[in-house]
Amino acid sequence: MSKLQAYIDERKELNLQELVELLKIPSVSTDPALAGDVSNCARRMGELMTEAGLETEIFETKGHPIVYGERLEAPGAPTVLVYGHYDVQPSDPDDQWDSPPFEPTEKDGYLYARGATDDKGQFYALIKGIQASREVNGKLPCNVKVLCEGEEEVGSPNLDPFIRKELDRLSCDIVFISDCSQFGIDMPAITYGLKGLCYLEVFVKGPSTDLHSGTFGGSVANPANVLTCLMAACQGPDGKIAIPGFYDDVRPLEDWERAMMAELPFDEEEFRKSVGAVKVFGEAGYTTLERKGARPTLDINGMISGFTGEGAKTVLPATASCKFSMRLVPDQDPDKIATLVSDFLNEMAPDTVEVEVRPHHGASPVIVSRDGTAVKAAEKALETGFGNRPVFVREGGSIPVVNTFQEALGAESLLVGLGLPDDNLHAPNEHFRIVDFHRGAVTMAAFLEEYGKGGD
Amino acid sequence: MSKLQAYIDERKELNLQELVELLKIPSVSTDPALAGDVSNCARRMGELMTEAGLETEIFETKGHPIVYGERLEAPGAPTVLVYGHYDVQPSDPDDQWDSPPFEPTEKDGYLYARGATDDKGQFYALIKGIQASREVNGKLPCNVKVLCEGEEEVGSPNLDPFIRKELDRLSCDIVFISDCSQFGIDMPAITYGLKGLCYLEVFVKGPSTDLHSGTFGGSVANPANVLTCLMAACQGPDGKIAIPGFYDDVRPLEDWERAMMAELPFDEEEFRKSVGAVKVFGEAGYTTLERKGARPTLDINGMISGFTGEGAKTVLPATASCKFSMRLVPDQDPDKIATLVSDFLNEMAPDTVEVEVRPHHGASPVIVSRDGTAVKAAEKALETGFGNRPVFVREGGSIPVVNTFQEALGAESLLVGLGLPDDNLHAPNEHFRIVDFHRGAVTMAAFLEEYGKGGD
Repeated sequence: MSKLQAYIDERKELNLQELVELLKIPSVSTDPALAGDVSNCARRMGELMTEAGLETEIFETKGHPIVYGERLEAPGAPTVLVYGHYDVQPSDPDDQWDSPPFEPTEKDGYLYARGATDDKGQFYALIKGIQASREVNGKLPCNVKVLCEGEEEVGSPNLDPFIRKELDRLSCDIVFISDCSQFGIDMPAITYGLKGLCYLEVFVKGPSTDLHSGTFGGSVANPANVLTCLMAACQGPDGKIAIPGFYDDVRPLEDWERAMMAELPFDEEEFRKSVGAVKVFGEAGYTTLERKGARPTLDINGMISGFTGEGAKTVLPATASCKFSMRLVPDQDPDKIATLVSDFLNEMAPDTVEVEVRPHHGASPVIVSRDGTAVKAAEKALETGFGNRPVFVREGGSIPVVNTFQEALGAESLLVGLGLPDDNLHAPNEHFRIVDFHRGAVTMAAFLEEYGKGGD
Repeated sequence: MSKLQAYIDERKELNLQELVELLKIPSVSTDPALAGDVSNCARRMGELMTEAGLETEIFETKGHPIVYGERLEAPGAPTVLVYGHYDVQPSDPDDQWDSPPFEPTEKDGYLYARGATDDKGQFYALIKGIQASREVNGKLPCNVKVLCEGEEEVGSPNLDPFIRKELDRLSCDIVFISDCSQFGIDMPAITYGLKGLCYLEVFVKGPSTDLHSGTFGGSVANPANVLTCLMAACQGPDGKIAIPGFYDDVRPLEDWERAMMAELPFDEEEFRKSVGAVKVFGEAGYTTLERKGARPTLDINGMISGFTGEGAKTVLPATASCKFSMRLVPDQDPDKIATLVSDFLNEMAPDTVEVEVRPHHGASPVIVSRDGTAVKAAEKALETGFGNRPVFVREGGSIPVVNTFQEALGAESLLVGLGLPDDNLHAPNEHFRIVDFHRGAVTMAAFLEEYGKGGD
C-alpha cells in the first residue's frame, strides 16, 4: 500500500483545496432561496467526479439534481455503489459560529464549515480514494458506481423514485456509505445499526389574531399554553416516551449487543463535558451508549409562539407551533408511528383550539449483517487507513436510503464513518478532522483492492 | 354644553390630524433601536400640550422622557391630575397588519395605527377636552396637571421615582386616566378594578451548542422538552393555575359584583366570534366576564427554541426560553407571586439542565372606590359625552401607576375608558373609533365643569 499512501500524501493539499471549494457553496436543500447554490454544487461535484476518472452524468429531479458517475472496468470483480450527499443542513444560528459557515477555516488540524463532515467531506474522501486506486493501479480493482444526491437533509423525496427507475444502472453487490462517524479519535467503526426517523410539526391555532393578555387572558385558550401541555404529555417520567403503543414494535437489545457496547471505551464524563450538559439524561434502564444508538427518542427540534423579541410584550398569541421528531429503532415503522402520535395529539387536544399535525419526512430504522466478504474487506481497509481495526456500533442518526438500497437493489450497506462523534454536524461550528479526510481516501482505495480480491 | 360641543365639532378635523401626526412616530419603548423616535414623540407631545394651553416641561429620566404640563388657574377648586402615556407596544408581527402600523389609516369610522387607542388616542382626547374647556370658558374650572410618560409599556421603571420626588408638583384630588375601554359601543364605563401583573421569563440551558438530534438524542436532556414540561406543570385541569399557593391571597368576588356583572349585556357568542376562537375558555366556576376582569390568569406571551425556519432540521436545541405573565387580582402581591412561581419552576426543574427565571416588570392589582364627588362628576360627564350613563366594570389590564398615585399622592384614580373592547391593543390592526375620540374630548371638558362645581 505504500505506493497508494505516497500518491495520496502527494495530493493532500490539492484534495483539501477541492473540498474547500465545495464547502464554500451553501447547498442548503431545505431553503428554497438557495436552490441555485444547490444546483451549482451538483455541477461542481460532477466536474470533480469526472476529473477523478468517473463517467459522470447529472440527473434533474422534481427537486435538486442527482449526480451519478461510474467506471466499470473490472469484469468478474464485484460492483461497489458509493452513496453520499452534497446538500447540507441550514447553518443557523449563524451568530454561534466562530467562523462563517460557508468560509471553510482550518484550525488545529480541523476544517470548520457547514458540510465539512456531513457529508461533503466524508463523501469527497471516497471520491479521492477511487481516483487514487485507479491512478496507482492503472485501473480500478472493482466496478465502481457513485450516487450523490442533493436532498438527504430533507428526506430524499426524489431519490427513491430514481433508484427504483434505474435498477440496472445502480445494480451492485454492496453499497459503501461514509455519512456517520468513527467511535473516537483513531478508533474507526463500522456501523451496523441506524435509527429511523418520524418528523412531525404540530400547529395550535387559537384566536384569529394576537390579543392583549390582560384584556383577554382568562377568556380564550392560549395556544402556547396548550402546546406545552400537548408536548409535555408525550413525555413520561424517567425519559420514557408516554405515547401509548409507542414501544410496541421496539426490538429489544440482544445480550451480545449490550455486552459489546459495555466493552467499548466510552467515557461518559468525557462525553458529558464534550456536549456541555450538566448531566447525561435519557430513558431509565439503559446506558448512554444504548440510548444513543439503540433506543427510540423524542426531541423537540424547534418551537415558536408569540413575542420573542427584546423585552416584554403582554400578548396572548394567536398561534403556537412545534417541530419534533422521534428516532426509531427496529422494528418501528415511521408511518405507523406518525399516525400513532398524530392520533394521540389530536385526542389530547382540547376543543378550545384547532390542532393540526403535519408530517415532514420519515425513515425506517435498519440493522445490517456483520458477516460477508464486504464487511471483512472494510475491516482490513480501515486497518490500513487508520492503523486500527474497527469496532462495530449502532448510531442514532438516520440514512433513509439504506432501506431503499436493501429493498430495491437487494444490496446491504457498509456504513464506514470517517467523521468523529463531536464534529457538530447539524450544529454551529461543524468540522472534520483533516487527517481523517486523507485516511478516508486511503481506506476507500484499500477497500476496493481488498474487495476486488474477494475479501480474503 | 352646546357651546362646548360646537367648539369641538368645529375642531374635529384639526384634532384628528394632530393625533395622526403623533401616531406616525414609532415610539416603541421596549426597542432600544427606536429610542430616538420615543424622544421625538415626547417633544411633539409637549408642543401639542403647550398649544392646548398648558405650561409644559419635559423631564429627562434614565429611560424615556416624561412630559408634564399644568394650568393652575382655579383657586379653591379641586385639582385633577391627568395621566397617560405616549409610548406604544411593538408592532410585530408586522405582516399581519392590513395597513402599516405607523401610517394611520381611516376606515369605516375607525383610525388604524399602533397606539391609536393605547394610549395616544385616548390620552390626546383628554388634552383636546382640556383645551376646549379653557377656550370655551375663558379659564379652566379646575386646576389641571397632566403627566404623560414614555415607559408604560415596559413597566414604568422611572415614573415611580419621579412621582415620589415631585410630590408637591403632582399633588391632586383625583387622577383621571383614559387607558382602558368602554363596555361596548355607546356603552361608556368607569373601571373600578384593574388586574396586577407578574411578568417572568424562564431560560432553560442544555448542551453548550445545538446538537444533531439523531446522534445525541437520548443522551442529554432537551431544553425544549424540559420547558414544555415546566410550563405544563403550571397549568391544572379546568383552567386553574396549578402552582401551589397561587390563589392564597385572592380576594373572592363579592356577591354584588357577580350580580352586577351578570346583568351587563355581554353576548358570549358575539365575543367568541369577535376574537375568532372556536370556544371561550378559562377557569371553571366563573363566567367569562368574571374571568376576564376579576380572576387571576397565566398566559405564555412568547416562546422560542431551536429551528423555527422553513422546513425541517433535526436539531437538539441548546436552549429554550419562554416569556409568560400572570394577571393578578387583589390581594395578590406581584413580588410574592414572582418568588412563588420562580421557586416552583426551580423545584420542578430537573438537574439535567440549567433553569433561570428572570423577572420583567410587575404591577399590583387595584380596586378603587365607587363613591365620592369625582366618580359622580365622571358619571355625568360620560352621559354628556356619550349620551348614556356609564356602567361599572373590572378590567383585566394593568395600570401599575394607579397604585403609586394611591400610595405617594393619596389620590384615587378615575378610570374612564374611551376605547372599545375589540380595539386590538397590543395586537395587529389596533384601532380607535374616531367618534369616540371626539366624545372623549367632550367628556373631559364636561368632567372639569362638573367636578369644578363640586360634583353635585
